[in-house]
Amino acid sequence: MPRASLSLAPALDRIAADIDRALDALLVVPDDPRAPLFQAMRHAAIGGGKRLRPLLVCATCELFNIDRAAALRVAVAIECMHVYSLIHDDLPAMDDDDMRRGKPTVHKQFGEATAILAGDALHALAFAVLADERTHPDPFVRADLTLELGRASGPDGMAGGQMMDLAAESTSFDLAGVTRLQQLKTGALIAFCVEAGAIMGRVAPDGRTGLRGYARDIGLAYQIADDLLDAEGSAAAAGKKVGKDAAAGKATFVSLLGAERARAQAALLVEQAIAHLRPFGPEADLLRAIARYTVERDH
Amino acid sequence: MPRASLSLAPALDRIAADIDRALDALLVVPDDPRAPLFQAMRHAAIGGGKRLRPLLVCATCELFNIDRAAALRVAVAIECMHVYSLIHDDLPAMDDDDMRRGKPTVHKQFGEATAILAGDALHALAFAVLADERTHPDPFVRADLTLELGRASGPDGMAGGQMMDLAAESTSFDLAGVTRLQQLKTGALIAFCVEAGAIMGRVAPDGRTGLRGYARDIGLAYQIADDLLDAEGSAAAAGKKVGKDAAAGKATFVSLLGAERARAQAALLVEQAIAHLRPFGPEADLLRAIARYTVERDH
Repeated sequence: MPRASLSLAPALDRIAADIDRALDALLVVPDDPRAPLFQAMRHAAIGGGKRLRPLLVCATCELFNIDRAAALRVAVAIECMHVYSLIHDDLPAMDDDDMRRGKPTVHKQFGEATAILAGDALHALAFAVLADERTHPDPFVRADLTLELGRASGPDGMAGGQMMDLAAESTSFDLAGVTRLQQLKTGALIAFCVEAGAIMGRVAPDGRTGLRGYARDIGLAYQIADDLLDAEGSAAAAGKKVGKDAAAGKATFVSLLGAERARAQAALLVEQAIAHLRPFGPEADLLRAIARYTVERDH
Repeated sequence: MPRASLSLAPALDRIAADIDRALDALLVVPDDPRAPLFQAMRHAAIGGGKRLRPLLVCATCELFNIDRAAALRVAVAIECMHVYSLIHDDLPAMDDDDMRRGKPTVHKQFGEATAILAGDALHALAFAVLADERTHPDPFVRADLTLELGRASGPDGMAGGQMMDLAAESTSFDLAGVTRLQQLKTGALIAFCVEAGAIMGRVAPDGRTGLRGYARDIGLAYQIADDLLDAEGSAAAAGKKVGKDAAAGKATFVSLLGAERARAQAALLVEQAIAHLRPFGPEADLLRAIARYTVERDH
């Protein structure tokens, strides 16, 4: 096991436990006909996933000495947003996946209608958690967080990227096209994780350039690693079906560059991401370790 | 045509034109593979609907002398939210409807995957529009609007109500159950329209009680009228299929009370709603006319 992943393990374990605990408290199953909705939300959100996005939020908040409880609320909001996108992406009309995080997908377990609603409910909840004054006492921070999350998940973010992904089955994207697709589909929310830390730390927009560069680079590196795992990995390790992109004839970083050049490109992006953190001292070591982890993980 | 509807006609025409213009500017189709997503959003959002929710926002804002441009931004956000819920409710896995606002539903016209994404994108956009500083200069107002919209659309609002609606096909709700279902499914967003005006007017929460009562009463009256139209109206006037609730064996206000008592109950709710506006003078006449319109409309 590589050194960087080893040093990240305790932080990943800690954030996973913190996020599960927070989601357990947030998603209490009511004793009324909405119970299946909450059960479906819990099934998708609790007890699975790498919690990389929450870790990114907390790691960036550490740079600015933000209280961990506040950072965790933002992290929970982002995880709700991420999980909603997974539920909808897995639907029969979309990627039609049966397994996610080693469990049946929500529509397999609870039916399609409940899955659509569980996604919708988590989507709304993400904003409600962010805009709550328990997240930050300064309303400017809360409004700014909400605005940026809305952008990251809307037609110029995740939803737009997923639309490009659907188009990828019938259009052959070049490298610029695949890069743009991934920047919208996964990059925008990863960038928001880091941006959120800077917003909480009241860093002015022009002081966030380095962190933005870091986020952009690890977002792409993460996606290239995903493409490599999809092409070479095992379903058992991934907790979901692999080899799907090739089967669907979709252009990916691996199909366009070949595995070797894709791997080299990902490594370059990681070095570039770490270089963006030069202004920071050891307080950014967790962010550096996360950058390395994006390409060294096995799932 | 009843007098109240007559006096409301110019206001309805004006808000319809304003909302269409704002959505046209907001949803510019990009010259990239996301074009079908934006076309689907435009198909669903522009050129249709009564625009009752936007009118409610603007009418409440008039009470507090809020600039119409600001009120319209909130109104657009709420209409995005409403249209998203219609797109998802119409999906094959949900109500499986072919027609909406006199046009094919989004999934009929653009396919199911694009319909899911168009709903998701409008959902996110609603929050991004609200949290933008062009909506209100005070970040506290923006954060408060976002929080309340998140609550109105989440598991304790629209998404929870739609889940109860799905359960209604296999559970027989009594009057309290149907009332609760409708308060979540449609009442929460209607209440937010009025609440948003009060938030924009910086009315403290305990000063909003009367407006909240008004919103609750017209929300229920509106739903009873919907049930009556579904039981007795024509698809041509409604722009969508009617008679569905009876066919699905769902309990409604009409099935539980009978048409005559349901009509009397709706009329009572309208009088009650208008009574809540007693503290206001002629500046609340538009809200009074809207209350009457909820039960007098023919679609």
